[in-house]
Amino acid sequence: MLAIDLAAMAGPRSGENRGVTAADRPGEPVAWLERLHGPGERDPAGIARDLAWLAGPGRMLLTADDPRYPGQLAAVPGMPPALFVEGDPVLLSRPQVAIVGSRSATAAGREIAFDFAARLAAHGFAITSGLAAGIDAAAHRGALAAGGVTIAVCGTGLDRVYPAEHRELADRIAAAGSLVSEFPTATPPAASNFPRRNRLMSGLSRGVLVIEAASRSGSLITARLAGDQGREVMAVPGSIHNPLARGCHRLIKDGAALVETVDDVLAALGEPGHESATNSASEGGLFAKIPGGPLDSDAEMLLNALGFGPAGLDRLVERTGLAARSVISKLQLLELEGRVESLAGGQYSRTTARQGR
Amino acid sequence: MLAIDLAAMAGPRSGENRGVTAADRPGEPVAWLERLHGPGERDPAGIARDLAWLAGPGRMLLTADDPRYPGQLAAVPGMPPALFVEGDPVLLSRPQVAIVGSRSATAAGREIAFDFAARLAAHGFAITSGLAAGIDAAAHRGALAAGGVTIAVCGTGLDRVYPAEHRELADRIAAAGSLVSEFPTATPPAASNFPRRNRLMSGLSRGVLVIEAASRSGSLITARLAGDQGREVMAVPGSIHNPLARGCHRLIKDGAALVETVDDVLAALGEPGHESATNSASEGGLFAKIPGGPLDSDAEMLLNALGFGPAGLDRLVERTGLAARSVISKLQLLELEGRVESLAGGQYSRTTARQGR
Repeated sequence: MLAIDLAAMAGPRSGENRGVTAADRPGEPVAWLERLHGPGERDPAGIARDLAWLAGPGRMLLTADDPRYPGQLAAVPGMPPALFVEGDPVLLSRPQVAIVGSRSATAAGREIAFDFAARLAAHGFAITSGLAAGIDAAAHRGALAAGGVTIAVCGTGLDRVYPAEHRELADRIAAAGSLVSEFPTATPPAASNFPRRNRLMSGLSRGVLVIEAASRSGSLITARLAGDQGREVMAVPGSIHNPLARGCHRLIKDGAALVETVDDVLAALGEPGHESATNSASEGGLFAKIPGGPLDSDAEMLLNALGFGPAGLDRLVERTGLAARSVISKLQLLELEGRVESLAGGQYSRTTARQGR
Repeated sequence: MLAIDLAAMAGPRSGENRGVTAADRPGEPVAWLERLHGPGERDPAGIARDLAWLAGPGRMLLTADDPRYPGQLAAVPGMPPALFVEGDPVLLSRPQVAIVGSRSATAAGREIAFDFAARLAAHGFAITSGLAAGIDAAAHRGALAAGGVTIAVCGTGLDRVYPAEHRELADRIAAAGSLVSEFPTATPPAASNFPRRNRLMSGLSRGVLVIEAASRSGSLITARLAGDQGREVMAVPGSIHNPLARGCHRLIKDGAALVETVDDVLAALGEPGHESATNSASEGGLFAKIPGGPLDSDAEMLLNALGFGPAGLDRLVERTGLAARSVISKLQLLELEGRVESLAGGQYSRTTARQGR
């Protein structure tokens, strides 16, 4: 009875991305949806809401018996029996690299994520991440900027976008890749759901690259789950004064591959011919923006004093021998020029757009 | 005949640091010196110059048959049969950590070298380095600032200081540790000699810590030689945008221990009880002293909240229950009083006794 109502609600599908809908196989989706809602739980209203969402364009429930259900995922024990998908489900079978990290990443960290994503996308990898602020969003954006495929694995129902300000980003991802969730519609962003989301993200991927993560963070959980699933775990190191490098350093100490360049990622994934990929994220050719104008000698001295880790005002005064007032005004200028960013705690750091040194 | 001339030149020795001199065992030093000058080479003028230098105060030729010749060195194949030493030769048998890195290090890199050297010296390690500019000099200075022992292994004759501007530093090292070379007097700074110098440096040490090194650099050679000699190889990571982190990252990829803190060094060296050494270079506090003077109760609460590790403002607000504004003003007061210092990354810590920063 319920199935009939739902079939009516689901309506006709357009396009090729068709999975299980009530219209295709009346009665069946309810059984799949009930499994996603939790064993033994009866939530007819929730299932009705799921089906209503599924009736929208470009949406489907991709079930484990569908040939398009990613084989890589099917091989991992405990993977969800079905996935809510918005976008092209076939892309889920693309070789993927997951790029994850801190929500409160530094600008330099976000740039690194963007760069790696763009370059890996150009190498044919889909870039998988979690649609979160910080590293995740930068990774999705990097893949999109390179005209590549990106997959957002969500910890909420796909009728919700979390964080809400990523609505437009989510739409772009659905258009150029796909949004995926194992959670029924209306599932809010609950902390307890994120480990499951992370497990799905690493399950879809050949490897997980961590860029900026605090000592205790969800990114480290993702990385550990990835290791358990036999996925390659990779981490980008940073200054020992950057608290967001500590999680990455922990992973490297525990055996993760230290990654400086896209070549390192390809090598870790055992990709053939990775030697010929000469462009690297750390060398900043492809996407580097070069700020205009020559630097005066004090500004250059200041950039040199700044080095490549964060430094506070006192330290910069000490290193340059300039007056604090002069250091501050030069920092502001460099910040306006996009060469320097100010971080939490009164620290300053170079941006990656630092070809002008 | 030659031996008699040289014995006359060497003259009487004062002080306790006496090794082989012509005066002690006529004829013998010439044989040792001839070995240092190269097999089959006859250089009477050079040997005369050596003996003249050796006649100076606090200088000696430490030969492999001397009980003070470091046992650790004697165990390594190919080590020099004798060493020119200025300073206390007994200190050469101290457990040593070599700290090496780029001559053109960043300010942050030099600070890290200084810090690690000071903290490791306080743990009882002699700090061994190569008297070069950049990381080497910072390491020597850090050990000196902590009142520790430091050993400079030179790639020139000890009658020369290279670079020349390290003359005063060399004198301080000779007074608080020792200068060592296997090269006869007047040996200039030749690139071909530095690998031998580096091999001696790692031979003397239990482990080699590399801080900032370019992809191709002498520090990497030192590290490789150290590995061949069974020494622990350790490297400090950095931003992937710092070209001087690349050598360190190369080493870590090749199996070197990734080092963020002094604790990491102690762990890599298999030091017992390193867990109890709660203070580390990045966590501060080893040199913690509690200056006198009465504290008001909020300030005392704040110091207690600070504990002996670093903490950020948020953490201190959380721990004390005070308003952020109040915590900031009290921190500034405590900083003026020298009880608290602000660290990189917006962290605060109780003061350390570090000097000369």
